Amino acid sequence: MKLHSLALTLDEDKLLILDQQKLPAEETWILIESPEQMVDVIQKLKVRGAPLIGVAAALSLALWTDKHKPTAAQFLETAHLLRKARPTAVNLMVAMDRMITSTQNGKVLQGVYQEACAIFNEDVELCESMARTAAELIQDGDSILTHCNSGALATAGRGTALGAITLAHQQNKKIHVYVDETRPLLQGGRLTAWELEKAKIPYTLICDNMAGFLMSQNKINKIFVGTDRVAANGDFANKVGTYSVAVLAQYHHVPLYVVAPSTTLDLSCASGREIPIEERSATEVHGVEGSFGSVRWAPENAKVYNPSFDVTPVDYLTGLIVNEKYFSQSDLKSGALLK
Amino acid sequence: MKLHSLALTLDEDKLLILDQQKLPAEETWILIESPEQMVDVIQKLKVRGAPLIGVAAALSLALWTDKHKPTAAQFLETAHLLRKARPTAVNLMVAMDRMITSTQNGKVLQGVYQEACAIFNEDVELCESMARTAAELIQDGDSILTHCNSGALATAGRGTALGAITLAHQQNKKIHVYVDETRPLLQGGRLTAWELEKAKIPYTLICDNMAGFLMSQNKINKIFVGTDRVAANGDFANKVGTYSVAVLAQYHHVPLYVVAPSTTLDLSCASGREIPIEERSATEVHGVEGSFGSVRWAPENAKVYNPSFDVTPVDYLTGLIVNEKYFSQSDLKSGALLK
Repeated sequence: MKLHSLALTLDEDKLLILDQQKLPAEETWILIESPEQMVDVIQKLKVRGAPLIGVAAALSLALWTDKHKPTAAQFLETAHLLRKARPTAVNLMVAMDRMITSTQNGKVLQGVYQEACAIFNEDVELCESMARTAAELIQDGDSILTHCNSGALATAGRGTALGAITLAHQQNKKIHVYVDETRPLLQGGRLTAWELEKAKIPYTLICDNMAGFLMSQNKINKIFVGTDRVAANGDFANKVGTYSVAVLAQYHHVPLYVVAPSTTLDLSCASGREIPIEERSATEVHGVEGSFGSVRWAPENAKVYNPSFDVTPVDYLTGLIVNEKYFSQSDLKSGALLK
Repeated sequence: MKLHSLALTLDEDKLLILDQQKLPAEETWILIESPEQMVDVIQKLKVRGAPLIGVAAALSLALWTDKHKPTAAQFLETAHLLRKARPTAVNLMVAMDRMITSTQNGKVLQGVYQEACAIFNEDVELCESMARTAAELIQDGDSILTHCNSGALATAGRGTALGAITLAHQQNKKIHVYVDETRPLLQGGRLTAWELEKAKIPYTLICDNMAGFLMSQNKINKIFVGTDRVAANGDFANKVGTYSVAVLAQYHHVPLYVVAPSTTLDLSCASGREIPIEERSATEVHGVEGSFGSVRWAPENAKVYNPSFDVTPVDYLTGLIVNEKYFSQSDLKSGALLK
């Protein structure tokens, strides 16, 4: 079996992950040799993006199962190890639960590989569905703000929010993209900028704190973001900073759209209050670190608050695209996700 | 004559400037030997903070005048060179205009040195006045957000907004400070964190995009910022990102106070629309640069929007402290600054 996406390649029993911490300066691929290594690669954000994390974890679990022929108990233990690698992204949990289900009733070794490949292929299809629906919301002349990276680097396919933007561009719509650099880990400045550059889509990079001023000047007329988890009522978690963007958007009457595959829905969370928020290391805020170099500018022992995500209530959301479906804020508030 | 502040020292004919680009890692002092060098030091932000820029420029002009005995025409030319070193900070223009006035009617060499020292000493006094008035607004238990650096590094005295915070701490009020790192030049993460560390005031450093999420969790109950220019109607320019903070503050019912010396008022600007906004180099957003090192993470040719300041309309302001006076938003809207 061969599978290929912008940031992940499977060639028979070889799983390679593009090291996203080294982008845009270097394109380095990491050979994944164990689920433990996969957990490390996930936690160090070398692979990232809620959908892609699920896909990558499933493939590493399948390859390991194929090679080591574990018992049902060993399989479950490894699946749970991967399942908790990051606490906020629900796709990872959904993917691991699918893998576990596919091996129930003693069929540990059967179907595991196919299931992982199915998760990959379905994500590619979901990306196309989302992009077709979301791109309909984009018109000639739009000036679109995006936060973090929700493109081909975050999924097995063309991406979620950024996938809609690249499709709109391919449909010859004249658009301009404003890219929040997305501190502390700079997924916007490094990854989204790199993807837009590759796709030859006109863009302007900004610091996160400039988005509000641009909105006040009417320079942004739509916002598209991805998400790491959507609760049953439409509240959603996404990269920290999304909440501020959403409040600023509402204040300036700029519509905000969230684009997500159905694997990102977590209907077991009634609202955003139940979504756990991962807190990360202080060193990420003390400076920056990557293949581009490593510097610290803050006092060494400075206390830091570093949530990886924040939660945006449904009240700030204009519309949510899930696969091929569009849900307005009032659809979401009337419980459309539960139907 | 000897004058001393946290970031500037005058010892007879020697003017030394603390290189703020090297903080917090190194404390390096630069000997200023000409007005041209002073302009360069201002433009490279080695000296910064609207009040301190005015003081430093006045002292360098005075020393140069004392040494070179210029003609009236030469003096005016040099004063204008300094006056336009940065376009947004009005204190620099006010200081240069005072220097020019002090030498009119052929008295080029008389009074210049005293006038510059008076500008320094008045700024120290203004800082104390502002701090006394503004600290009255701070209570035990307050959790205060600040943006950029408005402390002793930005003035000849204890600072403006941060000066009020350090005074409240000295008054034994139990406070906690949240510090926006303030991209792109990190005045919060480098300078405000350094000052708070020195003053032993509890603080938490955050990325700019986290402030809104903290407000939504009721973790911030007051905001204090400085300003680079206040228009006649109360609109004010401050470090980029202040506008977003102000909108988020209003949305979350968190009061926002601006602290400024009277030298920051520009009554010739009827409103914020007339305040010119300096745009700076793209390289500042492509990465970071300082004594801590220099890294670039964005694609080399990424187009950037990099305004140094933004303008916040008076509608978002709870109160403005000017010297010892407090103006509420309604005072400002009824033209109190013009009276």
